[in-house]
Amino acid sequence: MTVTIEHIKQAAERLDGVVKKTPLLTCFQLNQYLAAEVHIKPECLQHIGAFKFRGAYNRLRQLSDAERALGVVAFSSGNHAQGVAYAAQLLNMPATIVMPQDAPAIKLEGTQKLGATIRLYDRHSESREDIAADMAEQTGATLVPAFDDEDIIAGQGTCGLELMQQLREFAKTPDKVLSPCGGGGLLAGVSTAVKAANATTQVYGVEPEKFDDHFLSNKAGKRIKIAGTAATMCDALMATTPGEITWSINRKTVDDYLVVSEDDVAYAVSFAFRYLKLVVEPGGAVALAALLRKKIDVAGDTVVIILSGGNIDRETLAQCLEKYPSP
Amino acid sequence: MTVTIEHIKQAAERLDGVVKKTPLLTCFQLNQYLAAEVHIKPECLQHIGAFKFRGAYNRLRQLSDAERALGVVAFSSGNHAQGVAYAAQLLNMPATIVMPQDAPAIKLEGTQKLGATIRLYDRHSESREDIAADMAEQTGATLVPAFDDEDIIAGQGTCGLELMQQLREFAKTPDKVLSPCGGGGLLAGVSTAVKAANATTQVYGVEPEKFDDHFLSNKAGKRIKIAGTAATMCDALMATTPGEITWSINRKTVDDYLVVSEDDVAYAVSFAFRYLKLVVEPGGAVALAALLRKKIDVAGDTVVIILSGGNIDRETLAQCLEKYPSP
Repeated sequence: MTVTIEHIKQAAERLDGVVKKTPLLTCFQLNQYLAAEVHIKPECLQHIGAFKFRGAYNRLRQLSDAERALGVVAFSSGNHAQGVAYAAQLLNMPATIVMPQDAPAIKLEGTQKLGATIRLYDRHSESREDIAADMAEQTGATLVPAFDDEDIIAGQGTCGLELMQQLREFAKTPDKVLSPCGGGGLLAGVSTAVKAANATTQVYGVEPEKFDDHFLSNKAGKRIKIAGTAATMCDALMATTPGEITWSINRKTVDDYLVVSEDDVAYAVSFAFRYLKLVVEPGGAVALAALLRKKIDVAGDTVVIILSGGNIDRETLAQCLEKYPSP
Repeated sequence: MTVTIEHIKQAAERLDGVVKKTPLLTCFQLNQYLAAEVHIKPECLQHIGAFKFRGAYNRLRQLSDAERALGVVAFSSGNHAQGVAYAAQLLNMPATIVMPQDAPAIKLEGTQKLGATIRLYDRHSESREDIAADMAEQTGATLVPAFDDEDIIAGQGTCGLELMQQLREFAKTPDKVLSPCGGGGLLAGVSTAVKAANATTQVYGVEPEKFDDHFLSNKAGKRIKIAGTAATMCDALMATTPGEITWSINRKTVDDYLVVSEDDVAYAVSFAFRYLKLVVEPGGAVALAALLRKKIDVAGDTVVIILSGGNIDRETLAQCLEKYPSP
């Protein structure tokens, strides 16, 4: 099982005219600070405020009419939930999403508004995998995983395809690409697309320090599972172990992993508010955080960072802005 | 004195490679709600977080070396300040800006960070026009008005030129274009560019209800001056009378004016946070507010709205989000 650039190109065709081609943005303050040329791919501007629509639509679009009639089930803390819900709405399918009770309100309400049925679960006493599998078995609905699925990965990869094409229009090739990393689906898709376009571009996954399972797995040379009981603002990146499929890809296509603290993330969310004028959620801001905190030297480089989502509650944003209020 | 499409095209050449070509964005929730096709021109993503850089750079770029050496003086509540400061930085000129003591902190700090010297004044007891004029006289610096200047208007007009070109790439022409209106500089430039590209597109200026001098002037058929003592969140739109030059243009190119309340604006700022994932300041959100509150019927139309700036303090954003917290 793997995902090739051909899969990603096919996904791009399916998504053509449906997905938003998010722009590449720049920020002179960021470039000055880093002495680099940084291009920002703001997937917070994607439908439902996150890249997740790409994979979800690519997956659901391929279901037969009979499968569509039976609907779709997914579990997610919120962005995959909304991606599946909106893709299902466009394809006229019923969708049920299993979501943790403590998911951000903006994600719970957003999923509901998109017409999905929500089944809440308790993160500490229930298994979302079991609940979703039971539902799929009982109703015949298709279970759509959040990341460990070739069609999902290929869909997310269209983000990487796009950013390389957009840079090529300016006759540029990135030296480095930094992507947030939860289960590794976005990273697997993006790194596949980036390496196919230019094998020497270095690709980095960025994780919150309390959910550094890819960083540890990379060091160990095998998939490591962490406890995952720590609190983090990065609700979108709370995977405890790399996916099987995503890892089998990322171990070949990803050059290294970077880790950022909760404070680093809060600073990046605030920076995005103050300088980029973009609403970025904590999990979506980790790659920006890695640059701002100089976790990697990018001086003189052309760099692309992905801001993977913008679904942040106002209370969380207020906390970040209070912590880092100043320009 | 007037501004033609040729002036705007010349400004676009001067700005080429320097200004950001801000993208056109869409939002399916907004389109569904209005049964319209709305394209959003987010000038909050422009350098310094507002369209004002366009006009300032176009003006300063045309100064001689001798004039540049003597520097520039401007007065502004914040966005023109930052536009002038950044343009001056790029052109290696000293800049002094006269700013009200009660300007938003993000604008004061932003202007300072761009290397400008700031002279604070008291809005109630001092005349910023007199202070700036005195400075210009004493130092020989060039005084750059915020809106009532042909080069400033032509620079802002490049925003209109761009949005028409961007729509044309999709073989579309807007039925309606809505722009925020303070002194009328952006509106004059944009309406000139829009009407030149398509004479039947209707152009609307949008004002906060407490600073509705264009709305009243349009009704009266002549420039009306309002008291302008009311409080408003829209610090960027606190002009008390239309500019002479801007009015002489807008009376021919603008079809009508719309007025929105403080509540309408707060709702639009919150909507932009929740659905667009854009940070928009109150004055920058008035055109969005007019659509959301259905101040004009746009059903079936292709519409462009300009979000003119994103320099909002966190406290003001928090107020808007608290008032309208829900999706």
